[in-house]
Amino acid sequence: MKGENLTRKILAAHLAEGELTPGEEIAIRIDHTLLQDATGTMAMLEFETLGLERVKVGLAAQYVDHNLLQTDNKNADDHRYLQTACARYGIHFSRPGNGVSHQVHMERFGRPGLTMIGADSHTPGAAGVSMLAIGAGGLDVALAMAGHPYHLPCPKVLGVRLTGKLPDWVSAKDVILEMLRRYGVKGCVGKILEYHGPGVATLSATDRETIGNMGTELGATTTVFPSDARTKEYLQAQGRGDAWQELSADPGCSYDEEAELDLSQVEPLIACPTSPGNVKRVREVAGVKVDQAIVGSSVNSSFRDLMVVARIVEGRHAHPETSFHINPGSRQVLENIADQGGVMPLLLAGARIHQSGCLGCIGMGQAPGTGQVSLRTFPRNFPGRSGTKDDQVYLCSPETAAAAALKGVITDPRDLGREMAYPRIEDPKKYLVDESSILFPNSDGEKTEIVRGPNIKPLPDFEPLPETLEAEVVLQVEDNVSTDTIMPAGNKVLPLRSNIEAISEFVYYQINPDFHRECREKGNVIVVGGENYGQGSSREHAALAPRFLGVRAKIVKSFARIHKANLCNFGILPLTFQNPDDFALFEKGKTVRFPGVKKHLEKGATEIPVEIDGKTVLTSLDVSERQRRNLIAGGTLNLVRRELKK
Amino acid sequence: MKGENLTRKILAAHLAEGELTPGEEIAIRIDHTLLQDATGTMAMLEFETLGLERVKVGLAAQYVDHNLLQTDNKNADDHRYLQTACARYGIHFSRPGNGVSHQVHMERFGRPGLTMIGADSHTPGAAGVSMLAIGAGGLDVALAMAGHPYHLPCPKVLGVRLTGKLPDWVSAKDVILEMLRRYGVKGCVGKILEYHGPGVATLSATDRETIGNMGTELGATTTVFPSDARTKEYLQAQGRGDAWQELSADPGCSYDEEAELDLSQVEPLIACPTSPGNVKRVREVAGVKVDQAIVGSSVNSSFRDLMVVARIVEGRHAHPETSFHINPGSRQVLENIADQGGVMPLLLAGARIHQSGCLGCIGMGQAPGTGQVSLRTFPRNFPGRSGTKDDQVYLCSPETAAAAALKGVITDPRDLGREMAYPRIEDPKKYLVDESSILFPNSDGEKTEIVRGPNIKPLPDFEPLPETLEAEVVLQVEDNVSTDTIMPAGNKVLPLRSNIEAISEFVYYQINPDFHRECREKGNVIVVGGENYGQGSSREHAALAPRFLGVRAKIVKSFARIHKANLCNFGILPLTFQNPDDFALFEKGKTVRFPGVKKHLEKGATEIPVEIDGKTVLTSLDVSERQRRNLIAGGTLNLVRRELKK
Repeated sequence: MKGENLTRKILAAHLAEGELTPGEEIAIRIDHTLLQDATGTMAMLEFETLGLERVKVGLAAQYVDHNLLQTDNKNADDHRYLQTACARYGIHFSRPGNGVSHQVHMERFGRPGLTMIGADSHTPGAAGVSMLAIGAGGLDVALAMAGHPYHLPCPKVLGVRLTGKLPDWVSAKDVILEMLRRYGVKGCVGKILEYHGPGVATLSATDRETIGNMGTELGATTTVFPSDARTKEYLQAQGRGDAWQELSADPGCSYDEEAELDLSQVEPLIACPTSPGNVKRVREVAGVKVDQAIVGSSVNSSFRDLMVVARIVEGRHAHPETSFHINPGSRQVLENIADQGGVMPLLLAGARIHQSGCLGCIGMGQAPGTGQVSLRTFPRNFPGRSGTKDDQVYLCSPETAAAAALKGVITDPRDLGREMAYPRIEDPKKYLVDESSILFPNSDGEKTEIVRGPNIKPLPDFEPLPETLEAEVVLQVEDNVSTDTIMPAGNKVLPLRSNIEAISEFVYYQINPDFHRECREKGNVIVVGGENYGQGSSREHAALAPRFLGVRAKIVKSFARIHKANLCNFGILPLTFQNPDDFALFEKGKTVRFPGVKKHLEKGATEIPVEIDGKTVLTSLDVSERQRRNLIAGGTLNLVRRELKK
Repeated sequence: MKGENLTRKILAAHLAEGELTPGEEIAIRIDHTLLQDATGTMAMLEFETLGLERVKVGLAAQYVDHNLLQTDNKNADDHRYLQTACARYGIHFSRPGNGVSHQVHMERFGRPGLTMIGADSHTPGAAGVSMLAIGAGGLDVALAMAGHPYHLPCPKVLGVRLTGKLPDWVSAKDVILEMLRRYGVKGCVGKILEYHGPGVATLSATDRETIGNMGTELGATTTVFPSDARTKEYLQAQGRGDAWQELSADPGCSYDEEAELDLSQVEPLIACPTSPGNVKRVREVAGVKVDQAIVGSSVNSSFRDLMVVARIVEGRHAHPETSFHINPGSRQVLENIADQGGVMPLLLAGARIHQSGCLGCIGMGQAPGTGQVSLRTFPRNFPGRSGTKDDQVYLCSPETAAAAALKGVITDPRDLGREMAYPRIEDPKKYLVDESSILFPNSDGEKTEIVRGPNIKPLPDFEPLPETLEAEVVLQVEDNVSTDTIMPAGNKVLPLRSNIEAISEFVYYQINPDFHRECREKGNVIVVGGENYGQGSSREHAALAPRFLGVRAKIVKSFARIHKANLCNFGILPLTFQNPDDFALFEKGKTVRFPGVKKHLEKGATEIPVEIDGKTVLTSLDVSERQRRNLIAGGTLNLVRRELKK
């Protein structure tokens, strides 16, 4: 018998239910949970409804990295709520300005071979220290905090064999952009990417974080890297050498699918507006005027990423028509670049250095002007996500962003090689470690009084599935609608994440500002969509808020994984057309019936008939037994609470 | 004959019209103009309507320091508009993130003995380098940029003789708080404060900036300091020693009023919610729990101010329940504290270091939570200005803010003396000077194409005063209505400052969200008010936007001075009831006639008859000849443009 790949070894070691057969639902035990403040306020409210005294997971961490602008009371109220709830329930609390969850978790808590779920779609960045980390809905994380295993369809494993070594001026971001060039934004749905081969050792832990983080843009469930000498080196530099263990695939193991990538052949790449999958060679778009360049945030915000930029711009200045921003990934990163002389060159080059956090990446500031071109090292460039309508956001490496900041136009960073040597950055042998902005749980914390601001509202109750459902089509949308379109983020909307009634007014706002009013006038409604519906951020509010507005089913050509799971969690039927041509029948305003739908679900039917225009259209319901029970109960919380009461 | 005080010497050297008799209107020639982006976009549009090819003032500077959050396209569009307009017209442009106007102007441009007006009420901070600098409306600044002198009532001079030297843990902020304790927020209206005496030499240029900046909170027209060895030392450290000249009052000169302040007796003081005049000794409020401490922004954001905080918190950490923020006054300040080892202690103490700019001081971020206490080194704590309703904002010195950040409660900083020596900070002998974020005008600039985002709308045209005016009463308000009520600020409204139609929707929004609609349906309207109408901020939008909505006259019991001047600038008749009891007649919906009003103004009448309910009510018009001509023309711009055409 052949050996196992590393992914299956980690899954097997954590298997709580099911069998490791791709496509079948499994449940895995969760070692760590991760929350950030944008998804975390709701997840914490959900956790509270479960009525536990303390979390029941190895390590629970709450980060405050999204809502840092504080333009009114709401952000600070949420911060205080989360801080007091963390003390109360035994959760690690990373204070506002301490950094992006992914960066900080890897620095201080990540451990090879452990599992994690996080209410943030870029949670797979923990691949940098060889965790198996998955983005999930807030409710899934709340349940994991309560000790429940996490359910998911057992993924296929795509083994990617890396060979060679990246050339000068090319870095990890270009590797994941090369993957996006090959596979697009849906090419890895239902898969875990496992990198292996001799090229792995040429990538540092933070390089791997970049590749894991943005694996999400491929649609992948997560990414796994071996734990090797580079992992050890990183953990030792973090003063956590004891967290290390060696982990690798068995020799001669197989993968469900295989690919090969020669690092030495990777070129500087760039994702053009408005999809991470719209990848071109930088050369192809060179010369485009750049109004803004931003380095940092969710991805490419590590010591190396900022330091390489500092060395590139040292002694020069950003172009007069290019605004240049730095979003350090963490306080630790900023302290270490300050310690090693990286801050001054950035300041002297005209960089606007922001507090550590997500900021522009989630539309919290730094929006470009109308028609302006912005180059960002961020993971996403979905339309409008920057805060500016019709934005022109490109995604690229720190090297490419720095070249653009200096030249004022998109520039292949290798062209800088004519002016200077490539500043290859050595990670510190020993990071300056500062944990003082993390509040660790202690047993005294149970006495903490939880402080709730006026914007923090209890979770609404939802009714169970009726015997027969009748609803009106309130919206018909095309392919690749992202959760940013369903439930926008940005400074206006994110602060409302703990207030479902208020935030529901922004559902589908860009498509129809009256969407919420129309829904509430009509009662039960459905949304109809195309392929890859609900791609992007993990935000459960893209299910929760529509459900609050009366959305009872979504019928689409295909679903993105996390969004579909969120729909089940909040009792919205996730149906797909058996015949995609039926999409055209479901025009806005049409009335739709789901006769005997509850019975169908109870009987385990995978085919759900839908009546429209006197015809019956067949749809598929591809959910697990557990999800089926959740849908019947009107959502997971209804079911879990009922079980807890027993 | 006795000698002259310094204020009158500077005024006399710049006198263009009138005589230096307190209370009489004078006009002074202006050497420098200052704009920031919140007021400056409109001022620039106003300047453009004058049709000049280049500015006609010694030095014009445009700063971008208010609207830095960029939550959508509007901020960045404004920045680009200002940048291109500056290049076009020959204005110095300080890029976003380069710092607060007051700090940067003093560093790079301020010169002893020159006059300046700025569209920012804290412009008097330039007293730090012995300028005579006055806050004014945007239109006044636009006119000065066009070479016109600035009109104001000749102020009285209040001489403040300083003796002694500040004790440890007490600094310049406590001096101005002591003045506020003595005089309150209206105690220096119509006066220029001139500091003199042996204590002056104990205060550095940036200490004097603090005192001058916040002289505005006393209601003073401005503040003047002698130019002495300390001024020279500062200018030399800025590499601008040649800008220095010695300036002082003549020996034995007199002042209109006199006061004395012994610096050695000043204690740590704090302005309690919700007025800068609500000053107490820190000891009196010690022990109050502090949720947030912020150092920097408009005032107390100099090298010394940040460095003293860095040394106080060095090796310690902010209290777990106190959020700790740094708003550096300028890129230069941040670079110099980085250069001298001040950044790392701040970071290690948990400070969230923001890009250089105004930020929290103008409600652009850092709003405290509901019911939370915030200690700030800012100049103002008017209710709600932080962005949070019912906020609890205290104003204090950097020393007091640092003590609170460490202890989590309001703490007399002298109590820290038990734990450490007072870190007295020496200003650099030679600042690290970085002008690379200032774009200097050059002759090529005239070819620059001005870029206008979709939110940047041309200034509306206003018709001249008709022979007879008929209008409807659209609103009747009580005493003490502030310009914050007439035209709110904050993150929602400030970005609309260059779009009068859009911002006009927020006029009187708190009182009646439909105000703008009602006005536009009715055509010509008037507003009726009580005593002290239009108090508070100088924003001209509180006149401009109502005029756009058709407000043609305001009849009130009494006006605040600056608002009345703005009404004249935009052609709204500022009338007061001769018999305050007539107020009751002017109910909403009543029709009012001003028969032969234009003739009355042309004849120089100070009594304007108003017909209502078949009765005639007498009102007073108390304006200068110049203002009278502006009102007849339909606003100052109409008049100036007509004169320029001749």
